[in-house]
Parts: sequence; structure tokens; C-alpha cells
Amino acid sequence: MTPDAPTPRRPTYAARAERFHPSGVRSVFDIAMQPGMISLAGGSPDLAALPRDVVAGLAVGVLRDREVDALQYQPAQGLAGTIEAIREVMRAEGVEAGPERIQVTAGSQMGLQAITTLLADPGDTVLAEAPTYVGALSIFGGLEAEVAQVDIDEDGMIPAALEETIARVRASGSRIPFLYTVPTFGNPSGATLGEERRDAVVEICRREGILIVEDNPYGMLAFDDAGDTRSARTTLYARDPENVVYLGSFSKIFSPGVRVGWVAAPVELRARVQLVVEAMTIHASVPGQLLAERFVTQTDWRAHVRRSTAVYRDRRDALMAALERHMPAGTTWTHPRGGFFTVVTLPDGTPSDGLLDAAIAARVVYVPGSAFMADGSREDTVRLAFSFEPEERLAEGARRLAEAVRSLSP
Amino acid sequence: MTPDAPTPRRPTYAARAERFHPSGVRSVFDIAMQPGMISLAGGSPDLAALPRDVVAGLAVGVLRDREVDALQYQPAQGLAGTIEAIREVMRAEGVEAGPERIQVTAGSQMGLQAITTLLADPGDTVLAEAPTYVGALSIFGGLEAEVAQVDIDEDGMIPAALEETIARVRASGSRIPFLYTVPTFGNPSGATLGEERRDAVVEICRREGILIVEDNPYGMLAFDDAGDTRSARTTLYARDPENVVYLGSFSKIFSPGVRVGWVAAPVELRARVQLVVEAMTIHASVPGQLLAERFVTQTDWRAHVRRSTAVYRDRRDALMAALERHMPAGTTWTHPRGGFFTVVTLPDGTPSDGLLDAAIAARVVYVPGSAFMADGSREDTVRLAFSFEPEERLAEGARRLAEAVRSLSP
Repeated sequence: MTPDAPTPRRPTYAARAERFHPSGVRSVFDIAMQPGMISLAGGSPDLAALPRDVVAGLAVGVLRDREVDALQYQPAQGLAGTIEAIREVMRAEGVEAGPERIQVTAGSQMGLQAITTLLADPGDTVLAEAPTYVGALSIFGGLEAEVAQVDIDEDGMIPAALEETIARVRASGSRIPFLYTVPTFGNPSGATLGEERRDAVVEICRREGILIVEDNPYGMLAFDDAGDTRSARTTLYARDPENVVYLGSFSKIFSPGVRVGWVAAPVELRARVQLVVEAMTIHASVPGQLLAERFVTQTDWRAHVRRSTAVYRDRRDALMAALERHMPAGTTWTHPRGGFFTVVTLPDGTPSDGLLDAAIAARVVYVPGSAFMADGSREDTVRLAFSFEPEERLAEGARRLAEAVRSLSP
Repeated sequence: MTPDAPTPRRPTYAARAERFHPSGVRSVFDIAMQPGMISLAGGSPDLAALPRDVVAGLAVGVLRDREVDALQYQPAQGLAGTIEAIREVMRAEGVEAGPERIQVTAGSQMGLQAITTLLADPGDTVLAEAPTYVGALSIFGGLEAEVAQVDIDEDGMIPAALEETIARVRASGSRIPFLYTVPTFGNPSGATLGEERRDAVVEICRREGILIVEDNPYGMLAFDDAGDTRSARTTLYARDPENVVYLGSFSKIFSPGVRVGWVAAPVELRARVQLVVEAMTIHASVPGQLLAERFVTQTDWRAHVRRSTAVYRDRRDALMAALERHMPAGTTWTHPRGGFFTVVTLPDGTPSDGLLDAAIAARVVYVPGSAFMADGSREDTVRLAFSFEPEERLAEGARRLAEAVRSLSP
């Protein structure tokens, strides 16, 4: 380059830079904040159920008791007390995991980022549900991995479809680094993997030499509908802790703002995850870790989870009733037995172009179903979150959505 | 694979997984915590200078005033109030940056991780000082970039050496995505780039079309020694905000535990950094952001920086005096005019093998100088931090280090 060359005003990006796109969830985040807007978009937990005096009390304690320790560098694995609190939460899920298997992360997002960094080469093909968590697709794309999505029904991933997908990917010459799955109250589907299918998925992956990454942020938010038994939700991790990596989170049972999650993994992999966490952020926020720890050790956290789960169940019921009442004939939706989400499939022939704009004009916002597919398909579906808005606004949101759908229908 | 294949017990790692190693700093973190150990290793700030009632008051306010907002998902760019607080800190560095240029990150580590993700393809060659920040080497390695280190002296990077390195790297066929530099009170060297050299480095990089990434965690910790003028520390960013990306941090002026840093960058690059931050952690910890914001808006933060800088200056003086007194003839060290670190070069012929073990046996720990070189060279140097231990322990640490050196010398 000569001295006369113009000043560069745009850097030359790496190839992988083109793989980062605004996610379907975060790109409607600002819209969801507009006055008068009903948001069925983001999966925000309802924090109103957190007793305010408890929250204030936690905050007072965090810095006062620990003094400046809360502000200093701390071990990269996570605070010992936070790891113990995480083990208690896992015990409530029926899992016993030693502290040497736990890595605290700045949200479970970072756990999946670290695992994918360690296991997926560019061009490898990660398996996931169809549809799957949009933030997982961002991670896989950013690390230049491909994604093959496996069909599900209301009982979660279909084992025969998993086997077919494995065979198809391998026949294409691509390596499969792991299966990523949200088996319980899945995002966005709300579907839950049945008990026998859990055994089958674990067995298929063990046989095929494919690691499972089980993302379980919603597992404790079970609505306990008639006929829904606890045993249907035992973790994959408990079945095969040497071939399943577990991603846990405080975001849905306590607070997403603290950005505290964890990885439970075989010991050697856990140590490697720590190195990636160090390269990304040194360690998770210490005030955040202490708040999460105190939530577990100094509040009746199970009662809070029960209370907020009851709120989510009532909201699901309100949304389901409103969809039944307002949506045009031919519309279908999933019936989640826990968690935050349902996926609505619009009637045949509904134009998908312009639906989000029409909905926003009607003052309701959601995440398009195509956001949850690596190939951008399923444009005839939308994800609705029932976790955040109160019942009457969920009902009004469904009414507005129905209005938007009708405004576009031929 | 047949059904009879053994259960895999070790995952097949991605190629990049082999690039993550325990850093020289974090691997001595646990040793530094041992009773009786004097740590000259980690660059921990001295938080004792933070008034405890102020800290407790901050904590009370964070969750009480903002109620549950502090625990909820928030915008991925960062809280508006935190961005304003960051702009005030940058103003104190003589930089005016619009809010559209600021991305809050979970520590400046994440800022550099995001920038490198976006700009460096595998096999590209990042330029950096010799020696450079060990956590930067972790990032470059993990993203499979090469590193070419440019010679420095006590006035920082040598412009002629920069030009030679650029020519050499380009002649090798490797692309240079950016120059990474800690120009002010550098880590580990303590060196500060002179005023005229700042102009020269900015001009060389502009002419060559090479982006500069200026990491400035220590810039405000200036000891104001005789003859050291403020103008010698004006930022590179202020000189060319379209070709310099600035990495800022609350870790050294307030708290590393909160994990809050920032990137100031051209608008389009800032928006892309946000996408990478979202893929890694959604957004920085909200309690952490609020604590940093309140540190700026509700305390006399400049007075705190002045107080703690005076502490660091006295500690530097104590360490320098003790090195003078105790170290064997032929030992040299840098004379930092701010920041946390000095690099000691041991006398010719001192065996580097076993020095760290001998030092730990003498109950003092440091980071080997080879940690700051991509090629692991400079085994005859050690980095000493004077930021954390009080003066008498720094002096005793230097005495113990001298004892360890003598125990190995022929």
C-alpha cells in the first residue's frame, strides 16, 4: 500500500464476521419496549413474584458481608459457595454432581459458546431440534458450524428422525460434534421429550459416539397437569453423565440480569470450559454469583419457583383460551406442560410476508418461527411467550395477533 | 460405528481446543491464595481504598432503587445510564465519544475477544508489543490467529520496529487484522508510549491500513512523577477515532469483580461487537453495570482514583527500592510511571528452569515473563505486580525473590 492510499474507514472483517446476524429475539427487543405494545416476544421471566424485601435484603448482604471480596477478581471456576448453591439446584432436578464437574459461566449462553468452541470445527454439523433455541443458532453460526435439525412432535425429538439425521449428515461427510437439545419444556416449541424417548436418545447417542448437550433452563417450571408425572422429566445428564453435558441457568428460576449459569461436564472437559470462559470474560460477575448463591441459601427458593410456576401455568391457560377464542380456523399451537413458550402454526395460505409488521401495527410483537430454523424455514409459525405479560394482556395480545392474521388473509 | 463400540469417554475436540492453555497468570492464582504467600503475580487492584460505607451504600441502592429491573434482561448494548457513566470516564481521559460508539462488555477481555472474532481469520497475524498482555495471547490463540510481537523500550513500541514487523509479516503472506497495544503503563512492561511515538504509530497504521486496538485499563493511574506531563498520555483513540478501537475497563479504577468494560468503536463495528457479545453472554451483568454506573454518578470517583493511584505509586517506590537493595548485580527492571507492573530481567546465566518453584518455596509468587510472549521466550524475565500487596510485603517479596534467584545461580 502506498503512502497516498486513503484512510481505511471500514475494517476488513474475518470470514466468520458474516455469520453474526441480529437474532429474531433481540431485534424485536426495542419494539417490545414501546408504550402500548404487548410483548409475546422475549422469554423474560416474571420477577414480580420475587418478594421485594427479599431482593433488597439480598442486595444489602452481597457487598456488606463479603466486603470488597465481591468486587475483586475471584477464581475462574466460580465461587465455591456459588458452586455449592448450583449443586443444590441440581439436586432438586434429581442430579448429584461433584463440584469438580461444575463450571460457573456468565449465563448458560456462555456455557454453550464454550462447549461449541471446544468441540465443533468449522464445517462440522451440530444436531438440534427443529425448531431450536435462536441463541444456539447464533453460537453455531458464529463458530462456522452447520446445523441439522431433527423433527419433533409434542413428545419432543423423534428417535427415528434422530437416527435418520445422523445417517444423512454422516453420509454427507460432515462430522457431528454433539447433539444440542432442550428436552424439557423446549424453546420455542414447549415440547417435552417423553420418558422412553429419553432412554432412546441417550442410547442412540452413546451408540453413535455423539456427545449430548442438554440445555435445561426450564426444567423446574413444570405445570404438573393431570397425567404429567415427575419421572417424565428426569434429566438426560443423570442417565449418562460421561456422555451428557448439562447447561443450567438461574435466568428462569431467579434472574437473567445477574448473568449466572453453569456447565456440568466430565472433569477434563470442565477444565477446558474454564479456559474458554477465562478467554471470554475471566470469570462470571461476582455480585451476580453472590446474588444467585444467596437466592439459594438465604431464601425459600423452591417456594419462589413454585409461586412463579403457578403464575406461568395460569398465563399459559389464559393464552391457550384466547388463541382458541380468537384465532382463525386452521390455526394450531403446541400445548406446553411447563416453561415459557408455545409455537403457533398459521392457517394454510396465510402470507408470512408482512405479518410481523401487521402485528406491530396492531401493537403486539412476537418472534417469527423462522428465527428458530437454521434455514429460515417455517415462516408459517410464530413463537409466543406467555411468561412475562399478565393474563389479560396475553388475551388481548392473542386478539390483536388474530386481527393481524385476518388482515393479511386472502 | 457398530452398536458394540465402547462408550466414548473423551469427546473429540475441535482443532482450536488445543489452542487453549492455562494462562501464566490464572495458573498461579490458587498458589497466590496460599497462607503466607506473598503474591507479586496477579494484577489485582487495591480495593481497600474504596470507602466501605460507600461500597455498602452502592449495593443497597442497586437493587432497591431499580427494583427488579436490576435482575431482568436488559438491552444488549448496555444500560443507557452505564453508557453515560462510561462517557464521563472517557472524558476524564480527554476523549469525547458518542453513545452510539459505546458497547458495554463483560470486562474488556470480552471486548478484545469480540474484536478479534470479527477481524482475525485463522492464520492472520495480530501485531502486539513484546511483551504483551497474557489474556490477549489467550484470545488470539483460541481464535487461531498468529502473533508478531514488536520490540519496545521504556518509551513503548519502537516505530521503526513496527514498520519492520509489518513488512516482515506481509512478506510472509499473512494478513494483519490489527495492532493490539497497551500504550499507557503497559502490561507487563509498565512502559508508556511517548507522545511523538503515539503520532508515529497512529500514522504508520493509518498509512498501512491497519486498525489499532488500544487497550487502556491503566491510563488514569498516572504517578505524575517529575517531568511526566499529562500530554504524554493522550489516547491513540482521540487521534484517529475511525481507525482506533478503544478498550476500557472498570477493573483497575473500581472493581474487576463486576466484570464491566467497554468498546468504543466506529458505529458499524460497534453494532457488530454487540452481536458477538450477545452470542457469548447476551449482555453484561446488570448488577455489575449498575454498580459501575453508581460508582461514577454517586461517588467522588476521581478522588478514589487519585487516592488509589497514590497508593500504587508508594508501592512502586517500595518495590523499586527493595529490588535495588536485594537483587543480585546484573538484574535490571523497568521503571513504570503508572499502572501495576514492572518486568525484571535476571542476570545473565540465571537458570530459568526451577525459578518459579524456588520462589514458591520461598513463599513468593510472580508470573514468568515467558507468559507474555507468544513464542514463550524471555524466560530470563519475570513480571512483578505492585498493585495489591502492601509496601512491607512488597519489600519482603523482593527479598524472597532475590533469595530464590541466588539459590539457583551458579
